[in-house]
Amino acid sequence: MIRSWRNLSTLAAFRPCAQYPARSASFSTSSAARANRAIVYTQVGHPAINLRTYTFPTLPLPSPGSVNIRYRLSPINPSDLNVIEGAYPVQPDPDMLLSPDGDLFVPGNEGLAEVTAVGDGVQSLSVGDWIVVAKQQSGTWVSARTVRAEDVVKLPKGDVSEASAATITVNPPTAYNMLREFVDLKEGDWIIQNGANSAVGQAVIQIAARRGINTINLVRNRDDFEELEKRLKALGATHVLTYDDLVARRQFSKQVKEWTEGAPVRLMLNCIGGENVTKMMKVLGLDAHLVTYGAMAREPISIPASPLIFKGLVVRGFWQSRWYETHGRKDREELMRAIINLRLKEPDHEIVTIPGGLDDEEAGQLVRATIRRVSEGTVGKKILWRIEEPAD
Amino acid sequence: MIRSWRNLSTLAAFRPCAQYPARSASFSTSSAARANRAIVYTQVGHPAINLRTYTFPTLPLPSPGSVNIRYRLSPINPSDLNVIEGAYPVQPDPDMLLSPDGDLFVPGNEGLAEVTAVGDGVQSLSVGDWIVVAKQQSGTWVSARTVRAEDVVKLPKGDVSEASAATITVNPPTAYNMLREFVDLKEGDWIIQNGANSAVGQAVIQIAARRGINTINLVRNRDDFEELEKRLKALGATHVLTYDDLVARRQFSKQVKEWTEGAPVRLMLNCIGGENVTKMMKVLGLDAHLVTYGAMAREPISIPASPLIFKGLVVRGFWQSRWYETHGRKDREELMRAIINLRLKEPDHEIVTIPGGLDDEEAGQLVRATIRRVSEGTVGKKILWRIEEPAD
Repeated sequence: MIRSWRNLSTLAAFRPCAQYPARSASFSTSSAARANRAIVYTQVGHPAINLRTYTFPTLPLPSPGSVNIRYRLSPINPSDLNVIEGAYPVQPDPDMLLSPDGDLFVPGNEGLAEVTAVGDGVQSLSVGDWIVVAKQQSGTWVSARTVRAEDVVKLPKGDVSEASAATITVNPPTAYNMLREFVDLKEGDWIIQNGANSAVGQAVIQIAARRGINTINLVRNRDDFEELEKRLKALGATHVLTYDDLVARRQFSKQVKEWTEGAPVRLMLNCIGGENVTKMMKVLGLDAHLVTYGAMAREPISIPASPLIFKGLVVRGFWQSRWYETHGRKDREELMRAIINLRLKEPDHEIVTIPGGLDDEEAGQLVRATIRRVSEGTVGKKILWRIEEPAD
Repeated sequence: MIRSWRNLSTLAAFRPCAQYPARSASFSTSSAARANRAIVYTQVGHPAINLRTYTFPTLPLPSPGSVNIRYRLSPINPSDLNVIEGAYPVQPDPDMLLSPDGDLFVPGNEGLAEVTAVGDGVQSLSVGDWIVVAKQQSGTWVSARTVRAEDVVKLPKGDVSEASAATITVNPPTAYNMLREFVDLKEGDWIIQNGANSAVGQAVIQIAARRGINTINLVRNRDDFEELEKRLKALGATHVLTYDDLVARRQFSKQVKEWTEGAPVRLMLNCIGGENVTKMMKVLGLDAHLVTYGAMAREPISIPASPLIFKGLVVRGFWQSRWYETHGRKDREELMRAIINLRLKEPDHEIVTIPGGLDDEEAGQLVRATIRRVSEGTVGKKILWRIEEPAD
């Protein structure tokens, strides 16, 4: 639902939440005297313009089957910005707790939270548990929220850092699942990927290396290429190349054949798009899969008929959100356990705290300034929100 | 193996075949006094220039496990011309019976033959049986040949016309398999295809109609569109459109939605390529498959990331030759039986007889003149060779 910009003016006044049930004695560990804060928008548009913060009161007791959670860290992912721009196929539902009029949306698809109160009938969770919400567009850019226990996956608390846990539901599972769902890869097999320095790309390198799978990794040319190559090789990359190396196509194909000693390259992962994909594709062997999970160049891929017909190439996509939709709680927990057990390197990150001492106007300015930095593409690491509970 | 053009001059003289085994009393129904004829080439190049005919003696008795066959009708398929041009990924082996030097190639991938002699140990075949060879590039443009019984599929003689049987191994199975191998289509489902007037396209229409599957069929605009539409609808087409109708994309999508009453289009078949494919793709539903089996426009297809990632689109190819390679005799026979039982309309065709009375020079001229007609693309129907045994 898209409302006009003018609706935002109504947010300035605190909105008493008449729909809250009466507090009960067993209610939460949070102090009722402290309130919560969400990053919100009322209509799709540029996030560096449209985002505000919004303060709301302490959560009521969770209803049966639900839990209250407090977010510890919530990352800014590129797809979050697409959602706010309206350029993503899934939009969050309006947040009816924040505004019964259905005119407020909370972005954020990922984050680490802690359970603060447990509703009746929830056996699997306790206060203090670390959890992630495996439901897409659940709105994680918020200090606290009530969620259905069935949408929650518990993490083993001591086994994973805060930043790793806050970024565990999207990128590492994308890498993990793309490496197992399409081609039955064995030790010694070869794969190729572009955008190898992305969060997913780095997870692919690490997971493949753990399984003894060789990776050919393409990145943009840059002044500090040697340094990046060294860093990706330290993660387990077999070979690192730049897109410039694709220009001499014959040489590239020959080089790959030498590396693989003629073994087929069985899987290609693509998060870029454009003409380089067609060039990379030429080294793929019989019955290979080309899996697209992003489109950073915002260009389609061009596929000649010949590899489709004669080489059995299969071109498809992967979307972790869809995976969660089509898999139950047990599969999700197994996935999280498997990923934690891989002990992937914590992502390079920066935490941006929204201090509790700021009022909503100041907090909103900080949010928009941070988004501007992300949009400029110069940060070079993952930014995570830490949204403090606003002071009285 | 590609030899120089000059080698052809050696063909003028009849080549005695010293490698033939001694004749046995049980040998064949053919008269030893009559010889055979093949259409041949010695090097890849334009078929209207490079093809010759070549006369060779009566076949020896088939060795154990083999049968001798006489071809009744062998079609000219577009891929045959690609093979002769060297523009196909599979080339025939040199015909070592015709020339032990390995410098003669016999084109032809399809055709109806009759068994004329049966080698020891072959239980399943008798003299007079109608058969097809389900082995790619076996060289069917020949009056007679010895083949391994295991490569042969027997047809029920009275159940199918000569022209249908001669064109049964490539196009109808391509249509039949594409409609069953990728998407589990149910009665009432919708599919879309381009090149709907091609041999495969017409088979798709008929097979889909038998199964209660609705087809949206795209063809080139032409003066006699209404006539073609009527003809395809008589075969069972649900709707027939021209590529011009794709230009008004919104209208096209809306039209399709009205027809399908919102049901998803689950399969798209493509033998053309180019930008129209991207336009047609937009009407596909969740988890649809786009299957390419040809590239008449000789242009790649352009695939945006969004349908791959968010709609689960799978883009792949189909090649009937590969299917035969990966399926055994039982599967092949079942396939032929299933297709014969569908009673598809006999293809519009013209039979070009290479009369036994012509010498090789005259016969070669007739072959090249026929190929020129096919290359011009104005024949409008399938041409089938009937290669008579040359007179003494």
